[in-house]
Amino acid sequence: MADALTLHQDPRSGNCYKIALTAALLGLPLAIRDYDITKGETRTPEFLATVNANGRIPVLQIGSDADAIFLPESNAACWYLAQGSALIPQDRFGQADCLRWMFFEQYNHEPNVATLRFWLSILGEAQLSDEQRAAIPGKRAAGAAALALMDKHLETHAFFCGDAPSLADIALFAYTHVADEGGFALSDYPAVGAWIARIRALPGFVPMD
Amino acid sequence: MADALTLHQDPRSGNCYKIALTAALLGLPLAIRDYDITKGETRTPEFLATVNANGRIPVLQIGSDADAIFLPESNAACWYLAQGSALIPQDRFGQADCLRWMFFEQYNHEPNVATLRFWLSILGEAQLSDEQRAAIPGKRAAGAAALALMDKHLETHAFFCGDAPSLADIALFAYTHVADEGGFALSDYPAVGAWIARIRALPGFVPMD
Repeated sequence: MADALTLHQDPRSGNCYKIALTAALLGLPLAIRDYDITKGETRTPEFLATVNANGRIPVLQIGSDADAIFLPESNAACWYLAQGSALIPQDRFGQADCLRWMFFEQYNHEPNVATLRFWLSILGEAQLSDEQRAAIPGKRAAGAAALALMDKHLETHAFFCGDAPSLADIALFAYTHVADEGGFALSDYPAVGAWIARIRALPGFVPMD
Repeated sequence: MADALTLHQDPRSGNCYKIALTAALLGLPLAIRDYDITKGETRTPEFLATVNANGRIPVLQIGSDADAIFLPESNAACWYLAQGSALIPQDRFGQADCLRWMFFEQYNHEPNVATLRFWLSILGEAQLSDEQRAAIPGKRAAGAAALALMDKHLETHAFFCGDAPSLADIALFAYTHVADEGGFALSDYPAVGAWIARIRALPGFVPMD
């Protein structure tokens, strides 16, 4: 029997949604345990001691009770689920190129596109610190540059790696399709818009909550 | 014959050094092409059109001349080099756990530990913008938290994944061993210090320039 899988998540987090979407596309059952990150529920002593010493979600729990092991980092959890499936290219360059876009997502995209959404649509502008306010223009510019780079790639490619959807697409879809909630105009990136429609049409696709 | 490998790099960049160290540990020959990122040499029209539309180094070039393909993102380039070697765990959880630490490095560690080194030791504090100055305290705290998390893990583990060195160690070593150049006191993290000595002792190890 396969190990039971549990996603420790905040349902508003695109990083958590990546894992749920990967599981859905692969037909893997996934139990859900919800937390509210704005209430410090991932910083409790119990959470830090058991689930993730880094105090963050998502975490993929593999197994149950005393035998459970915990895997933080959204893209690593997706990799765990998708190994051996068509969502990870098997050739040497393709596999590295898939990871290239996943690292791009965590370095150039998520800290800008996702953070502005979190600040502006989840926390709310009134809750921001002076340091956060000062960082908005830089994140606005860097997020727009990431979306422009994606748009340029998608002008000549249906998906990010090769001709089929991969984890690179899932990782980038999560926060891109809700980028308007961070103040980005998706209409400025028409190739991204067409790719979003292709992802939504995949068999097994589930929307974000 | 194996494809010729060329690293497009700035020799002061830890992200570039990861790739050189991976190649050295694996005994792979690697040609070097140097750029000065502080002079805009990775933002020229030629670089953007040919090497990396994202205007960043490192980029691993595979092959030569018209047939060359280009792989940005340091950790993806290391993955390309190390596939099938002992630097990537082969079991399902181990491989995902190796990536977990590599994503942690790019999300929690590099933007703080490496960025402060770049700002304070390479650019110099006099060159920083007001926005960069405002970000220093947050990056100082986040970098210290990343080093503390590493230290806690290394109190009970010789390496980050399992009992042997992997790409997770190479990725985290690059900027950790020069963290003092960003104002972090490595003496505060004794388990990290002992791990640094273990990495330096690996057969084939090469120092950063």
